Amino acid sequence: MELQNATPEQLTQWEQALASEYEQHCQQNMRLDLTRGKPSSEQLSLADALDGILKGNYTSANGIDARNYGGLEGLAEARQLGADILGLEMEQVLALGNSSLSLMFLAMSVAYHHGFNGPESAWKNQPVTKFICPVPGYDRHYGVCETLGIEMITVAMTETGPDMEAIEALLACDPTIKGLWCVPKYSNPTGTVYSDATVERIAKLGLIAGEGFRVFWDNAYAVHDLSTTPKSLAPIMAYCQQHNTIDSVIQFASTSKITHAGAGVAFIGMSADNIRAFNKVWSASSIGPDKVNQLRHMRLLPNYEALLQHMQKHAQIIKPRFQCVLEHLENAFATNDLGQWESADGGYFISFHTRKGLAKDVVALAAQAGVKLTPAGATFPYGRDPEDSNIRIAPTVPTVEDVDAAMKVFVTCVKLASVRQALKANAQ
Amino acid sequence: MELQNATPEQLTQWEQALASEYEQHCQQNMRLDLTRGKPSSEQLSLADALDGILKGNYTSANGIDARNYGGLEGLAEARQLGADILGLEMEQVLALGNSSLSLMFLAMSVAYHHGFNGPESAWKNQPVTKFICPVPGYDRHYGVCETLGIEMITVAMTETGPDMEAIEALLACDPTIKGLWCVPKYSNPTGTVYSDATVERIAKLGLIAGEGFRVFWDNAYAVHDLSTTPKSLAPIMAYCQQHNTIDSVIQFASTSKITHAGAGVAFIGMSADNIRAFNKVWSASSIGPDKVNQLRHMRLLPNYEALLQHMQKHAQIIKPRFQCVLEHLENAFATNDLGQWESADGGYFISFHTRKGLAKDVVALAAQAGVKLTPAGATFPYGRDPEDSNIRIAPTVPTVEDVDAAMKVFVTCVKLASVRQALKANAQ
Repeated sequence: MELQNATPEQLTQWEQALASEYEQHCQQNMRLDLTRGKPSSEQLSLADALDGILKGNYTSANGIDARNYGGLEGLAEARQLGADILGLEMEQVLALGNSSLSLMFLAMSVAYHHGFNGPESAWKNQPVTKFICPVPGYDRHYGVCETLGIEMITVAMTETGPDMEAIEALLACDPTIKGLWCVPKYSNPTGTVYSDATVERIAKLGLIAGEGFRVFWDNAYAVHDLSTTPKSLAPIMAYCQQHNTIDSVIQFASTSKITHAGAGVAFIGMSADNIRAFNKVWSASSIGPDKVNQLRHMRLLPNYEALLQHMQKHAQIIKPRFQCVLEHLENAFATNDLGQWESADGGYFISFHTRKGLAKDVVALAAQAGVKLTPAGATFPYGRDPEDSNIRIAPTVPTVEDVDAAMKVFVTCVKLASVRQALKANAQ
Repeated sequence: MELQNATPEQLTQWEQALASEYEQHCQQNMRLDLTRGKPSSEQLSLADALDGILKGNYTSANGIDARNYGGLEGLAEARQLGADILGLEMEQVLALGNSSLSLMFLAMSVAYHHGFNGPESAWKNQPVTKFICPVPGYDRHYGVCETLGIEMITVAMTETGPDMEAIEALLACDPTIKGLWCVPKYSNPTGTVYSDATVERIAKLGLIAGEGFRVFWDNAYAVHDLSTTPKSLAPIMAYCQQHNTIDSVIQFASTSKITHAGAGVAFIGMSADNIRAFNKVWSASSIGPDKVNQLRHMRLLPNYEALLQHMQKHAQIIKPRFQCVLEHLENAFATNDLGQWESADGGYFISFHTRKGLAKDVVALAAQAGVKLTPAGATFPYGRDPEDSNIRIAPTVPTVEDVDAAMKVFVTCVKLASVRQALKANAQ
């Protein structure tokens, strides 16, 4: 299907064939959902041993009764696991709550309202605060900025990470830019793993940015490899130490896509000075995290090695779903220009680009045929994809059979929308 | 021991006897702790069945898989339990996180930074924000205000609750006062249960206060009765409905002193409009609470009746400790003016008042003899007790034998500090 050279007759013929194919899909009354990066039931069951694992022993490695108040920074062994995930020392990591998003929100609230370097340094003190968001990216990150009234500036995501030249140029001329969102490994949704050179350049941004600049390093997919020979992510804190910018990066991770989603342990990792500033606010808002749940996690995954072994079981479940999506895309679009996609070796998403101006149409067509996709635009700040082209495919929850059925619909919708666009262009 | 009429010789004799008694306490190298309102191990064990209670069944009453993301407001059955505790409807309650303090902090952040009635209504928009704190009160409440830069004004606690005349007078003349802290049942530390008349007057404060006024109703000890015929607390929301002030009260509770401390479920209860405003911020900071832990709690305490039965077991454990404290105080101070105290029928504290200017001395003397007490002043904003007189006794954690030993020391310290003060006054 080469739309450029097609005659109007050919386009009309295609449109009719595709419309009838689409109609057949619609009549099947499917109800399939490829919207969110959630684990499937099968994945969740991998951690069901959590419940009952304590067998009456509530004592942590260093003798604390996990059932009582206190321990503001989390259990030492949980902090160590977080440190292993994030490439940090135990003292640099706090194990808090069930949600890394909550920690991002709190850390950004600290920076915005309270200041990491005292009240004077609070971002709110300047007339405007801006944040750089590589696109496409994660809608929840944008939500944090929007709720705090932080203006978002987009830069493009490349194969090696965000467009560093653009970021450096922006920071050099605008000191009101106070931060950068990053999902450095299997970036949501493109699956990009930042190259070593990119990681080092990000570690150096603190040298050119204005006061109080912070990279929010959301390493949500740190251990979520699908390949047995995964690309490795360079440890950013090592570069920060080298370039004297250790305060400029705050790291996040959680076990939400490792054990039970939303019922796991979240981690925040940063320099000692950042921890001190964070704890001033955190200690006013909590008497401590749920240490019993941390203990459960440590009994299930006592160390990093056990964690990695656990992740291989996830990979076995997820991989066929990813392969199914990729096969459909390959078969339908490898030899034409109707779509482009990034093939991730891990994470939770496959990012697809339609021809310009078609993402919304495709999502609407699919919805009508019973296949729910993430709303077009969701991967851009304020929900506005300037090219109306990016669609995030999240294939983890449905069965392989359902992914297969949903992808048949998806392919039809992309083709149909593309042909109709070409017909419309011809008519004008 | 009547200090007023004692001769200098008598005082000197008492001082010597008490100093020697004190010296004997010191030589026992005790290490006892009456500082914080924590449950004892024995109490915590009452809820040990939580771990393993799910037996592979992670499905909530209305069919939700608790292991996955979502459910921003908490499981329906957990919200219902919170509603029963707070005297509200299920729809008025959110079951979120492990800490009611975190919910108080978040709710106050919403009011201060974001505004419950839109950005215009944010407290930060006025040059100063003030809050009324009945004293003595709970140090963590003060910490929330202090961290957000909210100025605290104190009013006295009476036998029927906070001094309502003082509060009404303050609100009538100062619209920058935006709230009032309340622990309405077994108030921390005095154990006061607010009278029905007080509850109704608090419900009416919204009629005289400035815009955006909110009562923070921390019902931390709602079900923590020690007596079998406990005083009941009037349901404030019923009065609010009657007086058209439903937005003016935000209620809090948690299971932290019901099941495992810091590993339970917290509740926030309020009007539909307040929930809407709260959720705007909450939804940006979380994908949902730990529903697995909520489900565990609902299997252990499936309804309010089961909860009350569970609380009776707590009462059996706590009661002898409270009685031991009260007996010591009765024996030592019933017939003199060295100390006054409130005898609580529930909650976690006994509040003791020394003669003016002695609380710090007593706490220091006790510490030297190996008995840790809450720092003097902690029950007042900014740690400043203007009369240096209030000491909060928290007897739940030690065994009855240890409470007994600690109270012997405490009584000696109060007497010794009092006699020394009288001697000093005589010498001047």
